[in-house]
Amino acid sequence: KQIILLPGDGIGHEVVQSAKQVLEAVTERFNHSFTFHTHDIGGCAIDQHGTPLPHDTLQACQEADAILLGAVGGPKWDHNPSHLRPEKGLLGIRKALGLFANLRPIKGFPQLLHASPLKREVIEGSDLLIIRELTSGLYFGTPSERSQNDKSVVDTLYYERDEIERIVDTAFQSARRRRKHLTSVDKANVLESSKLWREVVEQKKTEYPDVIVTHELVDAAAMKLITNPTQFDVIVTENMFGDILSDEASVLTGSLGMLPSASTRADGLGLYEPVHGSAPDITGKGVANPLAMILSSAMMLRHSFDMEEEANVIEEAVRQVLADGYHTADLNVTGGTIVNTKQMTQHVI
Amino acid sequence: KQIILLPGDGIGHEVVQSAKQVLEAVTERFNHSFTFHTHDIGGCAIDQHGTPLPHDTLQACQEADAILLGAVGGPKWDHNPSHLRPEKGLLGIRKALGLFANLRPIKGFPQLLHASPLKREVIEGSDLLIIRELTSGLYFGTPSERSQNDKSVVDTLYYERDEIERIVDTAFQSARRRRKHLTSVDKANVLESSKLWREVVEQKKTEYPDVIVTHELVDAAAMKLITNPTQFDVIVTENMFGDILSDEASVLTGSLGMLPSASTRADGLGLYEPVHGSAPDITGKGVANPLAMILSSAMMLRHSFDMEEEANVIEEAVRQVLADGYHTADLNVTGGTIVNTKQMTQHVI
Ligand SMILES: CC(C)[C@H](C(=O)O)[C@@H](O)C(=O)O
Ligand SMILES: CC(C)[C@H](C(=O)O)[C@@H](O)C(=O)O
Repeated sequence: KQIILLPGDGIGHEVVQSAKQVLEAVTERFNHSFTFHTHDIGGCAIDQHGTPLPHDTLQACQEADAILLGAVGGPKWDHNPSHLRPEKGLLGIRKALGLFANLRPIKGFPQLLHASPLKREVIEGSDLLIIRELTSGLYFGTPSERSQNDKSVVDTLYYERDEIERIVDTAFQSARRRRKHLTSVDKANVLESSKLWREVVEQKKTEYPDVIVTHELVDAAAMKLITNPTQFDVIVTENMFGDILSDEASVLTGSLGMLPSASTRADGLGLYEPVHGSAPDITGKGVANPLAMILSSAMMLRHSFDMEEEANVIEEAVRQVLADGYHTADLNVTGGTIVNTKQMTQHVI
Repeated sequence: KQIILLPGDGIGHEVVQSAKQVLEAVTERFNHSFTFHTHDIGGCAIDQHGTPLPHDTLQACQEADAILLGAVGGPKWDHNPSHLRPEKGLLGIRKALGLFANLRPIKGFPQLLHASPLKREVIEGSDLLIIRELTSGLYFGTPSERSQNDKSVVDTLYYERDEIERIVDTAFQSARRRRKHLTSVDKANVLESSKLWREVVEQKKTEYPDVIVTHELVDAAAMKLITNPTQFDVIVTENMFGDILSDEASVLTGSLGMLPSASTRADGLGLYEPVHGSAPDITGKGVANPLAMILSSAMMLRHSFDMEEEANVIEEAVRQVLADGYHTADLNVTGGTIVNTKQMTQHVI
């Protein structure tokens, strides 16, 4: 298996290195052979190549079996013009590779729940998966431009029916492998795109009679995530609603630094990255928490390589290390032992 | 002053009646003269007149000084075609009257904070005002339609620069009357409309040098509302982001049933309504909580009639009634005395 490493910016380098070491331990134990190649993306690519997504990087990813991405961005590039912003690399690679399904599992760790802003009785037991459409909708539609005199501006929320169908299929299939409850989020009382979305979900559900479907309006969903997060299993929604709701949900368990994500397409190619950012404040200090990146590599094993057992072994190791009382400084734990990035990685290995 | 009452559907009738009685008590005490006229909107207007926003209703509102609205909607109309849905009445009246600024103050009551899903130390002391642009953006832009064969769909996020300027001005002025901190929320790393929005805020801030401005991306704002709500004073954002964030924020204090709102325009005309809905499950039982509607009428006195003292008297009465231990059944309070709608209204009076 060919794996492309895109460390990106900030702590991306440190955490990608950790994930690589964990994957090497997996190859030894299970007798696999993974090769790793490293390429630039984001701010470092702007500095080195004048573009956030160099052609070489894209080509290498196109030929790979999976991609691990650390993080992009940092204050250095915050005032660049928009085509020279690190995020453009991320938007560009998602679109160019057709990675239409963003999977964001959110499940608390018992040792970390005390750091949640929510009361324990509200958050305990929650285990949800947000599936966000990632390559269409308002973030990609055209026109996206101003009038000549800057007197008006337009962005376009455009969906093709088959773009909706494929993400809804992905979501039904995920729900089937979980607790068989799918919540589709839209604004069907106002938006035409949401009405079509809801129709597609209603049509598709006849193909998945074992899955129970609920529709929620996006404003109501934003409330219910907070008041009653345990009611959700799989949530599916369009790009922008998914951007907002998945970030909202990511703080509920109190361990943003632990959350992995996957951006995948139908043939199994996927890009895996932690939800946290490039954390310029702690870059280079060797104290970054590598667990979200390591858990992202477990998602890679499961989704891109169909290596369920290997993925489970990594996830179990992370749980065990936390249960043994090891944690990095960012995790707001009292007691236990604070370890740095390298030590945490060794404990997982 | 001419006040139009639009009870709408469900518990709207009961709570509008309460607000009217409280306002009558205010007129006696302060020697004002208010006249009240009642008109149909929403589901009941569909049933009576075949349209959610009858011409008579709109005309009466156009000639009024302020409007009190109860709630619209209910299961009876949930499967109507979209032009015959109760919400269309609400969208229609906002647009027709040009009520571009939606004000949603969110402040907990000490007696009710225990019902918050958030830990007390997270929510305590929070006091924020979300200002949502209400008559433009994605919910009103055209085209909003499907292709002929239903193979694709488009909605349009369109803003004129002066629509952005006037809401941003409203927000700066509100911030000035409060703690002088304005957070502008956008998605300027992706959307062209957000880039223009951010530019307008940057330009306007030179006119309000006493106000401190922070920009947040909408996904980050959705997180920070939960992890650290006390950091916010006034939040200003465009229509759809405001829809999601204001509903998200409305559950933080644990007393959704207490929250008022105002939809206003520059000349002072405003429509005032509780944030809660029509509550079909308790309609007609006489147990609805009238406080959000009563607090909305206080907002009316302040914003449309410039009656600051009168508004304060109502708000103080509500605080006192809660402090005295009276509450309706929806408020999740232990101890104290449960009262019905009429009793609660009398206590406030
Ligand atoms: C950086 C930005 C363009 C991106 C997005 O909104 O898609 C990020 O917020 C994310 O959610 O991955
Ligand atoms: C009913 C609906 C159209 C409306 C909106 O989204 O504007 C409601 O959710 C609100 O926030 O007042």
